[in-house]
Amino acid sequence: MISVLVIGKGNVGFHLYNVFSNIDKIKVTQISSRKLQDIPKADITIIAVSDDAIAEVSSKIKNTFIVHTSGASSINQLKNTTRKGVFYMLQTFSKNKKVDFSDVPYCLEAENQQDYKLLETLAKLIGNKIYAINSEQRKIIHVAAVFVNNFTNHLFKIGNDICNTHDVPFEILMPLIQETATKIKELSPENAQTGPAIRKDQKTIKNHLALLNKEQQKIYTILTESIQNGN
Amino acid sequence: MISVLVIGKGNVGFHLYNVFSNIDKIKVTQISSRKLQDIPKADITIIAVSDDAIAEVSSKIKNTFIVHTSGASSINQLKNTTRKGVFYMLQTFSKNKKVDFSDVPYCLEAENQQDYKLLETLAKLIGNKIYAINSEQRKIIHVAAVFVNNFTNHLFKIGNDICNTHDVPFEILMPLIQETATKIKELSPENAQTGPAIRKDQKTIKNHLALLNKEQQKIYTILTESIQNGN
Repeated sequence: MISVLVIGKGNVGFHLYNVFSNIDKIKVTQISSRKLQDIPKADITIIAVSDDAIAEVSSKIKNTFIVHTSGASSINQLKNTTRKGVFYMLQTFSKNKKVDFSDVPYCLEAENQQDYKLLETLAKLIGNKIYAINSEQRKIIHVAAVFVNNFTNHLFKIGNDICNTHDVPFEILMPLIQETATKIKELSPENAQTGPAIRKDQKTIKNHLALLNKEQQKIYTILTESIQNGN
Repeated sequence: MISVLVIGKGNVGFHLYNVFSNIDKIKVTQISSRKLQDIPKADITIIAVSDDAIAEVSSKIKNTFIVHTSGASSINQLKNTTRKGVFYMLQTFSKNKKVDFSDVPYCLEAENQQDYKLLETLAKLIGNKIYAINSEQRKIIHVAAVFVNNFTNHLFKIGNDICNTHDVPFEILMPLIQETATKIKELSPENAQTGPAIRKDQKTIKNHLALLNKEQQKIYTILTESIQNGN
């Protein structure tokens, strides 16, 4: 039996508490990061708060082994005087969307081998893709994740806006969105590229720009140039 | 039995010929757009060439009913003197990647109801998502498709580049990429947004920029601002 304390009730804390609750070998409790009185003891204390709050929250906790869940923060952001680690799940979490934890890559870091093994044991109770990733590597993965997730999702939003403005159903684009994500399982993104930018089809590019608002034009232009320059 | 002539051997022509070949009720032939002698007759002649070549190729063909497959081109790009139409498949095609035609949305247009019905009959033999889309609507769908497919794929390429530069495996990002595409089946892209831009986490944004090359920084900055401005 592993005892886990989850601190924080945001997107990550919410889903983590839920998945741990369903595992017999885990005894989980959860508290808000805003109420740090009477903190329960635990084998692993998981701080799932915003990056900026990790230092302050961790400085107030005396538990023996404390980890954060942030992709962008070094292990040294933890200011507890006890042992430290990282339990970073490389996935996007929204409260209204169920997460398949068995498909999540777990990026683990700890100061010693025994703590690493403990994190690994915990991760294996809910998933199966376990990676030892140090703080430097995690930073790289995190910025790459921003490109493939946050920015990609924003392009979906722009596609949605364009459709809404002109009364065309966005749903019609769903199979294309799925296929774009699936395609790179077989082809590299470089080999998977299609469309007017890579074909240098200047007439279509000009026609497209005429349909967009100023902000959309800026993004269209910079991404088209980047594709054409092979950047 | 419907007789179909596919003109063009690029990505779209390649896959179309293959899928039609497997249907008993379709008799399909294919020729290259560079060899327009002895053109076979057909109920439907499908010109699957680059946008710029549609006018020239169509002007040389006397068959009774000619359609193109372009999302970006009006039906009037066809310069044949006989009947015209459009058979636009809203999907990304690469020769090395199999296409699931049953999942493709077919955006059809014709000058009269009888020709539209004929295109619909053809589309129903290989798929089931059929939409009547006129040339104006198709332009909008096409520019939206560039955002959700071409540009998204380019962001995958940048993510891949960042990982390669720092010797981190890109594969670790695959579940995130899949989830980002799947999530918007349940949430709107606007509600699905996560990450440092939407949280206005300036410290993380600054740290990310320090890890990127100049071109990547430009794209990171413009997309971060666009997310933050709600554009």
